Amino acid sequence: MLPLEVRSILEEMRAERIRGASWLAVRGAEAYITLAEILKGGELENALREMKVEVPTVNRTMASLYNLSRFIPITGDAETVRARAEEFIRLAGEAKREIGNIGSELIDENEVVITHSFSSAILEVLRMAKKKGKSFRVILTESAPGYEGLALAGELESLGVPFEVITDAQIGISAKNATLALVGADNITRDGAVLNKAGTYPLALACHDNDIPFYVAAESFKLHPKLRANEVEIVERPYTRQGFRIRNRLFDVTPWRYIRGIITEFGILVPPKEI
Amino acid sequence: MLPLEVRSILEEMRAERIRGASWLAVRGAEAYITLAEILKGGELENALREMKVEVPTVNRTMASLYNLSRFIPITGDAETVRARAEEFIRLAGEAKREIGNIGSELIDENEVVITHSFSSAILEVLRMAKKKGKSFRVILTESAPGYEGLALAGELESLGVPFEVITDAQIGISAKNATLALVGADNITRDGAVLNKAGTYPLALACHDNDIPFYVAAESFKLHPKLRANEVEIVERPYTRQGFRIRNRLFDVTPWRYIRGIITEFGILVPPKEI
Repeated sequence: MLPLEVRSILEEMRAERIRGASWLAVRGAEAYITLAEILKGGELENALREMKVEVPTVNRTMASLYNLSRFIPITGDAETVRARAEEFIRLAGEAKREIGNIGSELIDENEVVITHSFSSAILEVLRMAKKKGKSFRVILTESAPGYEGLALAGELESLGVPFEVITDAQIGISAKNATLALVGADNITRDGAVLNKAGTYPLALACHDNDIPFYVAAESFKLHPKLRANEVEIVERPYTRQGFRIRNRLFDVTPWRYIRGIITEFGILVPPKEI
Repeated sequence: MLPLEVRSILEEMRAERIRGASWLAVRGAEAYITLAEILKGGELENALREMKVEVPTVNRTMASLYNLSRFIPITGDAETVRARAEEFIRLAGEAKREIGNIGSELIDENEVVITHSFSSAILEVLRMAKKKGKSFRVILTESAPGYEGLALAGELESLGVPFEVITDAQIGISAKNATLALVGADNITRDGAVLNKAGTYPLALACHDNDIPFYVAAESFKLHPKLRANEVEIVERPYTRQGFRIRNRLFDVTPWRYIRGIITEFGILVPPKEI
């Protein structure tokens, strides 16, 4: 049984509805630090074994949680666990900044960027582009039913970046009005597919149909070392409206052939197969 | 100035949020009948001239309203106006039934039909398929922000047709689970494009990407005799959520190349250009 403090962080992660795979991975690393403050020796080792199961199941679609659980060794040495978790957090921060640097170079003057849902990596790209003095605007979806897009709208408002919020259903008609598409990712599979918020795949198709370059921004810890797209479990969160059960798979799969490049902290990758 | 009774029908049409182009056209024809009951001679002629402007502007995207206003001659003879409006209503009813007959033949045993928003023509197809004893199921979008899809869900429930409601953003991932796509139309343009509820175009793209046949059902009065896709005005109905203005173009444009066929009362048409 994990200590109460750690279990409550995992609970908080499970309950989070706006922030995505990057935030969850960092919060998960903090859970490891908390664990290393409480336990040591054999108890710590047992708890780490439990964490290796618990952390990825917070959201089975997200490669970041799986990779975090692999990044932390199973050991009784609390100092090692703490150091490794801190390293993960440091690398995640550096990766985010570097993605901002690299990705913002894709944004030209008067660019019209279309995005879907809320991605902290995309926010960093846009923040950096603004910081570099570029003038551009953003089309973003409200992203029902959680309306994560409106959290992004709030951030853009603070940054002074002009934007237009659309319904999710306008993703096709609005792609025609954009010049560049940028989305985040929750999992990039071995076969180069991107799992991201449902709606990403139709956006990619509409961009492809209108010759709008479509890029994904993702820290390298979102690359899944083992699974192919059809092996990833897609988390569902159904709800009820007007008495009807609404199916709500949170993610969809965009095949590599619709992706121009994946912006990582190491540079822009083209998917692993021919493009 | 149109009589109060007629203006109130036009107001009701403008305020309608669930029912689509077919219903509006029939309601518009009823407005003509009401007009012919109240006015005659020169007054009727003047009112008809006004109707020719007013009826299409109830919703400028819908070809049905434009075609209705052309179907009714400008004359002082009230009996002619009434007879013509009644003929429109009769033809609309016959067309709907015939579309149901023809379209239901496309539905095979265990078909999984995906649709978007609410179309009375599609409902008729599904109703007829059920009546013919076919067993199939339907995937449908809730269709935010008006949730017209839930009105369809209610109808399917009454018919005893199994269905699954999804968020609009799952249109891509759900297309893979379908075997046939059926949608309605608000306007079929001279160049063979289909204007229908926004979200139809990404659904068509996802069907194309997954080799799912994509059909449109539309009475012939939805064929626009003059306009091309880029000449049709797309009606917008913006709203506010969490303090943000949400852009809400009601329709999008699906090019002919993604459409397998258009089910009309005359049979299944392939779009006017090469396919």
